Amino acid sequence: MVLGVRTEPSATTGPVLIIGSGLLGASIGLALTALGVPVRVRDASPVAQALARDIGAGEVDDPDAPHPALVVVATPPDVAAGVIGSSLHTYPRAVVTDVASVKGAILEELSGLADLDLSRYVGGHPMAGREKTGAAAATGELFAGRPWVVCPHPGTTPEAELMLRHLASDLGASPITMTAEEHDHAVSLVSHVPQLISSLLAARLVDAPESALGLAGQGLRDLTRIAASDPKLWTAIITANAGAIREILRGVRDDLDGLLGALDRGADEGPLAVGAMHTIAAIMSAGNDGVSRIPGKHGGRRKRYTEVVVLVPDKPGELGRLFSEVGEIGANIEDFSMEHSPKQKVGMANVSVLPAVAQELESELTKRGWKVVAR
Amino acid sequence: MVLGVRTEPSATTGPVLIIGSGLLGASIGLALTALGVPVRVRDASPVAQALARDIGAGEVDDPDAPHPALVVVATPPDVAAGVIGSSLHTYPRAVVTDVASVKGAILEELSGLADLDLSRYVGGHPMAGREKTGAAAATGELFAGRPWVVCPHPGTTPEAELMLRHLASDLGASPITMTAEEHDHAVSLVSHVPQLISSLLAARLVDAPESALGLAGQGLRDLTRIAASDPKLWTAIITANAGAIREILRGVRDDLDGLLGALDRGADEGPLAVGAMHTIAAIMSAGNDGVSRIPGKHGGRRKRYTEVVVLVPDKPGELGRLFSEVGEIGANIEDFSMEHSPKQKVGMANVSVLPAVAQELESELTKRGWKVVAR
Repeated sequence: MVLGVRTEPSATTGPVLIIGSGLLGASIGLALTALGVPVRVRDASPVAQALARDIGAGEVDDPDAPHPALVVVATPPDVAAGVIGSSLHTYPRAVVTDVASVKGAILEELSGLADLDLSRYVGGHPMAGREKTGAAAATGELFAGRPWVVCPHPGTTPEAELMLRHLASDLGASPITMTAEEHDHAVSLVSHVPQLISSLLAARLVDAPESALGLAGQGLRDLTRIAASDPKLWTAIITANAGAIREILRGVRDDLDGLLGALDRGADEGPLAVGAMHTIAAIMSAGNDGVSRIPGKHGGRRKRYTEVVVLVPDKPGELGRLFSEVGEIGANIEDFSMEHSPKQKVGMANVSVLPAVAQELESELTKRGWKVVAR
Repeated sequence: MVLGVRTEPSATTGPVLIIGSGLLGASIGLALTALGVPVRVRDASPVAQALARDIGAGEVDDPDAPHPALVVVATPPDVAAGVIGSSLHTYPRAVVTDVASVKGAILEELSGLADLDLSRYVGGHPMAGREKTGAAAATGELFAGRPWVVCPHPGTTPEAELMLRHLASDLGASPITMTAEEHDHAVSLVSHVPQLISSLLAARLVDAPESALGLAGQGLRDLTRIAASDPKLWTAIITANAGAIREILRGVRDDLDGLLGALDRGADEGPLAVGAMHTIAAIMSAGNDGVSRIPGKHGGRRKRYTEVVVLVPDKPGELGRLFSEVGEIGANIEDFSMEHSPKQKVGMANVSVLPAVAQELESELTKRGWKVVAR
């Protein structure tokens, strides 16, 4: 199987010290250990540290161990700068990186610390995560195929930057270089603001009548899925990136105010109030334009797939039978989702395929007795 | 296969006239025709009317046809009231219903029309749709397993309400009775506001740097999927339900203002500004609470499934092989999603199963050579 993970490290050859053995730290430890790199793990919590060792993420750090060539700081973001600083101080030849999802605030805090050789520091942010947290959820494949943002500051040596790029590649990720500012703006747009928007919407459901929630469909489910994320971790991320986030959220608020103005006119003067429909349509059209810019699968532009919708009885093996028959027909499934029907033992499987094969797939599935909904 | 569609109509026995042959009208026509009910279809557009006939949604209406027992008004919402009124007038014994996604505005407009026997009108809203529109996307299975809101007004006769409930059941839907006001509030919460929120977020991407969009993950994709919806149709829906929508959006705006205040304090005074973290954490916790209230599959409370994550090479047949092997192992897939990796020919399949079978599934899949990511 193609895993996108190299079987030999390209340059991460020296010992690596990982400080912080949560999901990211332990996953990096697992992946490097699998590559034969000597890894040591340190965590403020002895329990978390022992768990990381037990799952095979590395040896427990001890003061007599040889100095690391690379230190990966994988602590919560609010303490990362302090740990980066002390690591640069303690290991005077090591390259030091971190995995925090904000970069500007850390760099600013580091710049305020005296007597630090920041040339050996290169910020990093692997864009990987799970809804679960902690070493128990760790996996060496966590980074396979994900972007890993590499954030050198003006003083970072080329060697330090290269070491982080190699680490990312060794773990199957795609290293992408950005400044800290570019990074913080980008993640606020694609991650932090979406998280807050999802929470804001889901918060409206707290007092909703049960009967209204019974009408919920896939749209609401998709929009609120990440509202289940951990408030503690996310509050730390959001406060650390407050500047970039508020800039984007102010744009949302301005559009929302415009929309509320249009709704007021629509509610008070009737739906045909001058300009009201225009404002609503303009925001929806901008939404059309915005979503079309998100790159599709494999980093390319969004491809136009054709969706074939098949009714699937909710019995063991039926979905498997559908997939193996799609395989027999020779169609590659580009994307897949299920829509579940409340109070009904039947699901709608949305099978996305290249347009060229959609028609044959539909007729072949119909021949085999499936109820194909799309035409 | 269990389709949730009856093979005989329970009570929809008289001729049915469908006015408006878009996705919903043509789908109702197809389903009723399949049940042996005589259906006539009328559309302001002769082309749309002919298309509905050609796909088998019913005969083209003609003035000499016997009067219908039931008229289903499936026009755009902004003209529905007028068509309902003229139908009540033209067919003095028919029950008249509609499928518009707003109910209060229509009822209000009807109440303003003179000399109408509104006792034969019962509002309806099948909660079914597709991203595609028009008769070409119609399917008789569109309503299978979906809620169909039945909105009698105080003057509706029990017979009229019962006829609509039977229509819904005959088409495989679950009839749910609500007042027009309850309905409009419910759909603004679960459908209209989520649509606008998705558009507001996606609109922020219009001017985003390409490099930022390259970091987009599943969260942003889920949140912006429905931002691709048709602005024209949605603008009509939203203006017609402006009152209920603005009430909920004002709550979003108030929370958003609170959040922006906290971000301002966080950005200006540092992340530890008094109360800033508390405000952010409170909104995220409310989001946790809200999302946990959305009922899960099959109308029950959200079940706790265990997610087994499997790496799947992006080659034809691999996903099919995975599904058929999961079936062989005997696990029923409760939910499924794919995460695609940019620039990497590998995907992560998230297979949700009951917790009791997760461990066996993981070990069996591993034995068969799959890379299982979850633990």
